[in-house]
Amino acid sequence: MFDLGDRARTAAESLARAPTDAKNAALIAIADAITERTPAIQAANRRDLDAGRSNGLAAPLLDRLELTDARIRSMSEGLRQITALPDPVGEIGEMRMRPSGLQVGKMRVPLGVIGIIYESRPNVTADAAALCLKSGNAAILRGGSEALASNLAIAECIHDGLAGAGLTRDAVQVVETRDRAAVGLLVTMESHIDVIVPRGGRGLIERLSREARIPIIKHLDGNCHVFIDDHADPDMAATVAFNAKTYRYGICGAMETLLVGRGIAPRVLPGLAARFTDAGVELRGCEETRALVADAAPASEEDWETEYLAAILAVRVVGDIDDAMEHIRRYGSGHTDAIVTDDLTRARRFMTEVDSSSVMVNAPTCFCDGFEYGLGAEIGISTNKLHARGPVGLEGLTTQKFIVLGNGQVRG
Amino acid sequence: MFDLGDRARTAAESLARAPTDAKNAALIAIADAITERTPAIQAANRRDLDAGRSNGLAAPLLDRLELTDARIRSMSEGLRQITALPDPVGEIGEMRMRPSGLQVGKMRVPLGVIGIIYESRPNVTADAAALCLKSGNAAILRGGSEALASNLAIAECIHDGLAGAGLTRDAVQVVETRDRAAVGLLVTMESHIDVIVPRGGRGLIERLSREARIPIIKHLDGNCHVFIDDHADPDMAATVAFNAKTYRYGICGAMETLLVGRGIAPRVLPGLAARFTDAGVELRGCEETRALVADAAPASEEDWETEYLAAILAVRVVGDIDDAMEHIRRYGSGHTDAIVTDDLTRARRFMTEVDSSSVMVNAPTCFCDGFEYGLGAEIGISTNKLHARGPVGLEGLTTQKFIVLGNGQVRG
Repeated sequence: MFDLGDRARTAAESLARAPTDAKNAALIAIADAITERTPAIQAANRRDLDAGRSNGLAAPLLDRLELTDARIRSMSEGLRQITALPDPVGEIGEMRMRPSGLQVGKMRVPLGVIGIIYESRPNVTADAAALCLKSGNAAILRGGSEALASNLAIAECIHDGLAGAGLTRDAVQVVETRDRAAVGLLVTMESHIDVIVPRGGRGLIERLSREARIPIIKHLDGNCHVFIDDHADPDMAATVAFNAKTYRYGICGAMETLLVGRGIAPRVLPGLAARFTDAGVELRGCEETRALVADAAPASEEDWETEYLAAILAVRVVGDIDDAMEHIRRYGSGHTDAIVTDDLTRARRFMTEVDSSSVMVNAPTCFCDGFEYGLGAEIGISTNKLHARGPVGLEGLTTQKFIVLGNGQVRG
Repeated sequence: MFDLGDRARTAAESLARAPTDAKNAALIAIADAITERTPAIQAANRRDLDAGRSNGLAAPLLDRLELTDARIRSMSEGLRQITALPDPVGEIGEMRMRPSGLQVGKMRVPLGVIGIIYESRPNVTADAAALCLKSGNAAILRGGSEALASNLAIAECIHDGLAGAGLTRDAVQVVETRDRAAVGLLVTMESHIDVIVPRGGRGLIERLSREARIPIIKHLDGNCHVFIDDHADPDMAATVAFNAKTYRYGICGAMETLLVGRGIAPRVLPGLAARFTDAGVELRGCEETRALVADAAPASEEDWETEYLAAILAVRVVGDIDDAMEHIRRYGSGHTDAIVTDDLTRARRFMTEVDSSSVMVNAPTCFCDGFEYGLGAEIGISTNKLHARGPVGLEGLTTQKFIVLGNGQVRG
């Protein structure tokens, strides 16, 4: 494993200075290889699926593990899309002339070696490798052991694509052991790996956080709120709230609790509740909510705390924006929270005072996404406060160094 | 201690929305209080000094502990200077219209609660409190126990200054126990503290890193290099190299190893070596260096690795820029490294390829400093790659959240 780390470190140095053209050529060559070798990848995938079935892997895990034709096409398409993104490496900014006569600015550079730890989705192998490559970083990939044959088949395409573009194969390495201890070792290899990006559930992330000696870009809970202020347009409020919940139940940006101002609740809640009920969303409300929405179940303290990721919604009537922000402060997870209002001062207060990685005005929380934000692609969504917060694109896989240009100045 | 953490969390919420005027008024009130109560602060300081002497505290530690008139004036002056810095909180940038019609940008916000752990310099109490306050963060300060009386006397000024400006006293709290276990507890209070900034030696930082469950802005070694390229102007090269070493021996940006191109070495090294020797700098050279500089001692492998922080300089003759960069890669600490050259291509290569937090062209490494870089003030110099790298000013004590403005868009 340390050997793998040494190779990654060496690869990172050459990758940091690889021209954009070479990185894009590799991405296209990898995409082509994946398309051409679809039968071989699917054969490897069938071995994983067969083993998974005999080991009694649960149906949703088997589903994630499967590389259908559509998923393989989408991997290949994803690689091509990343070639179109601007290369963040080498960008120079904030260059200023100082009183000393020195010019001081910042240059964007790769982080170095990125460890990606993920579960049973083999398509992450290609996605994560592509983002690390484009941002000039070497990658060490550790996927779920039940997907190892699939991951290795994809890695073969990656290695050939890299070599075809004149880049080192060690730029992307897959940990080949099925031993779970490998993960514990990876997160402590501080001289070999600069950051760990876990792609998986809360259990995985919490375990890694406990053991890690390396910074982790964490993605924890998304207990997201929409607050309908008394000064909201009732139609817009209903549209935003409905979309925030029903766009997709399982995403981290899905609304989990709806807060409604006492003044507007009678005008908005009954109709909106009917829309939710028609769509199959179970409602759990406070007492005031239940007075307006007959078929809402009573909400408990636990409901305010829960990220359902399901067709369940907690609803609470609040006195004003202060009560709404207090609820969010107390129960929210600092992921994404939105206000619907036409009052500029309240919009400004909500935007300034709510301490979440994304704060929205008159937009549904489900828009929290790297593509929607214009990052082009997304390696994950960070709930950390330091380094990267919210959706993490290529820029989140880089850092900045200071550059100083002079002509022989001395400090005295 | 958790009680202290809870109070800090609450203070951080109100501080995050404190207007710049109130923060500046508090800084001035604190500066005034420190000036007015100089006798009381010095009386407390004498108690610390007396206790230190009876406990056999070493002379350099006693020196750092002492609050002379000049040091108190400089504390007070530092506070006033911070009022002049622009407030980073609330700054909105990168606001772009997305195809969906949403505007997406970033707003700069405080990190929350910052823990500062420092050794026996009581002036850090005022400096660190001021930077945290101006950047809208609550601070928990844990200074060396031998400075506790001094720190509490300064904290009294801080608390009165805060209260006078209508801000909560809990914005800055000093840990009052002398128990060393308090530090171990602080660095694990992840729900109360967002980042730890240690101000002290390597031993302190390494100990904290091992125990911490919270991100640490680390300041480790500064093994800095100046490389004199064959295409350098010999006079400029000598000026830059001499200043890089002799401006101050004890700072982390001081040059520790001088690398000289083989082609220019005979023209530059003998004269430069004489200047160093006259200034009392001991030279330790490779064989080629010793052939040109008779009184240089032989350098060992250990010399290349050492951050002397003293009047000792390692000197090595190298074949070309590749050899120089290979030496820096192998022995450097990624802090600050400089090239002296008039060749644009080599300058560009050095700037791009050397992976250090500051990379300089024709400027001495001792310029690595928050004031010189225009950050206004500096809480420390980070050798981390993530979040803040190099000198850390007010901006390094903040983070960015995404803000999204719409008019009822839906994702579909």
